Amino acid sequence: MRAVVLDSELQYISNYPKPVIEQGWAIIKVIKAGICNTDLELIKGYMGFKGVLGHEFVGIVKECEDKTWIDKIVTGEINFGCNTCDSCLKGLQRHCPNRSTLGIVNADGCMSDYCKIPIDCLVEIPQDITINKAIFIEPLSAACEILEQLNILQPIHFSKCDLPTQPQNGHIKFRKQKYLRYNYTGTEQVTVLGDGKLGILCAWVLSTVFKNVTLVGHHKEKLLIASWNGVKTIKNSDNLPKADIVVEATGSVNGLNSAVELCIPRGTIILKSTIAEQTPVNFTQIVVDEITVIGSRCGQFKDGLNILQNYPDLPLERLISSEFPAEKSIEAFSESSKKGILKVLINFGDWRLETRD
Amino acid sequence: MRAVVLDSELQYISNYPKPVIEQGWAIIKVIKAGICNTDLELIKGYMGFKGVLGHEFVGIVKECEDKTWIDKIVTGEINFGCNTCDSCLKGLQRHCPNRSTLGIVNADGCMSDYCKIPIDCLVEIPQDITINKAIFIEPLSAACEILEQLNILQPIHFSKCDLPTQPQNGHIKFRKQKYLRYNYTGTEQVTVLGDGKLGILCAWVLSTVFKNVTLVGHHKEKLLIASWNGVKTIKNSDNLPKADIVVEATGSVNGLNSAVELCIPRGTIILKSTIAEQTPVNFTQIVVDEITVIGSRCGQFKDGLNILQNYPDLPLERLISSEFPAEKSIEAFSESSKKGILKVLINFGDWRLETRD
Repeated sequence: MRAVVLDSELQYISNYPKPVIEQGWAIIKVIKAGICNTDLELIKGYMGFKGVLGHEFVGIVKECEDKTWIDKIVTGEINFGCNTCDSCLKGLQRHCPNRSTLGIVNADGCMSDYCKIPIDCLVEIPQDITINKAIFIEPLSAACEILEQLNILQPIHFSKCDLPTQPQNGHIKFRKQKYLRYNYTGTEQVTVLGDGKLGILCAWVLSTVFKNVTLVGHHKEKLLIASWNGVKTIKNSDNLPKADIVVEATGSVNGLNSAVELCIPRGTIILKSTIAEQTPVNFTQIVVDEITVIGSRCGQFKDGLNILQNYPDLPLERLISSEFPAEKSIEAFSESSKKGILKVLINFGDWRLETRD
Repeated sequence: MRAVVLDSELQYISNYPKPVIEQGWAIIKVIKAGICNTDLELIKGYMGFKGVLGHEFVGIVKECEDKTWIDKIVTGEINFGCNTCDSCLKGLQRHCPNRSTLGIVNADGCMSDYCKIPIDCLVEIPQDITINKAIFIEPLSAACEILEQLNILQPIHFSKCDLPTQPQNGHIKFRKQKYLRYNYTGTEQVTVLGDGKLGILCAWVLSTVFKNVTLVGHHKEKLLIASWNGVKTIKNSDNLPKADIVVEATGSVNGLNSAVELCIPRGTIILKSTIAEQTPVNFTQIVVDEITVIGSRCGQFKDGLNILQNYPDLPLERLISSEFPAEKSIEAFSESSKKGILKVLINFGDWRLETRD
């Protein structure tokens, strides 16, 4: 089969061996895969990964012991937990110390004609969601992780409960579902630093809960794209107002210090950038102002799917810069690493056609 | 009156002018004051403070428009808010941008025969609490701030409420009062780094909620003192078990990186050390493991008082290294800055005697 393989260098291979079915796993015919910044980091040596790249995909189940999955359009949670450790038992497979991660740690990825996913990681894509939207479920869920970590995503039955007398509690009608906004009114100032894909997705997801979301970036054309659902955009400025919640998605060494400058006392900083360098930080400010800094990575696909279903007007397609056929994968990566480029897709063929090996 | 004054250098002055009463304020005859690490930092130039030092005290109200306060034994909240800004309206006077802070920012401190405190900052010391315990209310409340920030201190009526179905919720009978332990079972591993006064107080306060509290330090004699209510002590070791909650109270540049090493994925680090230097930190680990880092400073005195009343066996006296008369304040400071010394008190005279100017 065709595959994008990282070994000593990035290669497109036309006759890579097709994955073999195992008990508890499914084989998926890949329709499209997305290139993520993490893939670009892996090529530079991050995690020391070797194998088939890719962890963002939509495909169709072709082999599975549970026959109800066959021919379903799916994507897959990317962290495969052991399902026996403390983390897994808490539902935190994405923090399992023994996990493998699709196309990142100890597992071939999805940039190939076929990929292999544990059955319990399969997520069905409902018919009303297009493939070009569904391909964003992984980064969209990573943005939704912020809502979970801020304790905004809570069970619906909680809304009937006798709430604590903290200041400014409230509920929000999150279109079709009710969530508790614990300690938030929805009128807080939320500022997202960084106008890359993840920054824009974070701003959009947060705009479904908060009225005042501002995205701060360097790139005029990306900021234009980011305007949706009341998200304000600002080209980098030294006179930003203080914010209750600051999302750091700059991917830059100085991002956290900028976030600390912007954050109000007792405010919250969400840290999304993974930066290999050790970053010097002003900790006294974090202590004196009692700021909470929350590291935030992957989310649960159910949350990303929930947003997709409740916000059919979410303009994810705006984030697609270009799409390449599988044979031009190397060009796709080269394009993806250019300045100003957002999502680049690799197309492994129309799923409606007969699959081929 | 006698006063310990920081100007270009630390001075003991025998004829410093007594504070003058103003509307809304009280004049207090100081009984004892405690020397805090922050005082030692102020002497080195931190905050650029000049004036009477000191923010830990017990005294007796001598002048006040509300006559019910006269002759009451009190201490005082140290942050004087404007009571009109957003922070103050939320009950967060300690984060008021216009605040003055006793002996730290724009307000003479308590190391003098008399000090001046806003009436709404007065806290009465109940009769069953000794002065040598009450003198610790400020740092004890700073330790209790951790419980508030972990959402452990919640209104009692919350305990009757229909709880969210998060894993491992539970209640705790906190001796006389019920608190909600949101998301905690009480069996989590809590590790406190640093065996200074604040580290020991944090370990003690956390031991009232968590069963497994470990204090890690360098000093055999301090670790001996720290053993109370099941707190385990360990002399610095490279083989520490991972912890759910890590309190960083080392006062050292490398404290946070040690805390990150120790913390489990999705765990919490409480940052207590204020370190002037910019500290290089491994942020990728915080993001990948989704660690929450909470800056933590002052607490509410009601919480410190609550611990004092519910735990009469809390061995605060063990933390007192020595006590000096006011005239020997400079010696007291010199003693306080020595290695291995915990709390040093300055005695401004027995409150039972007639006061003098």
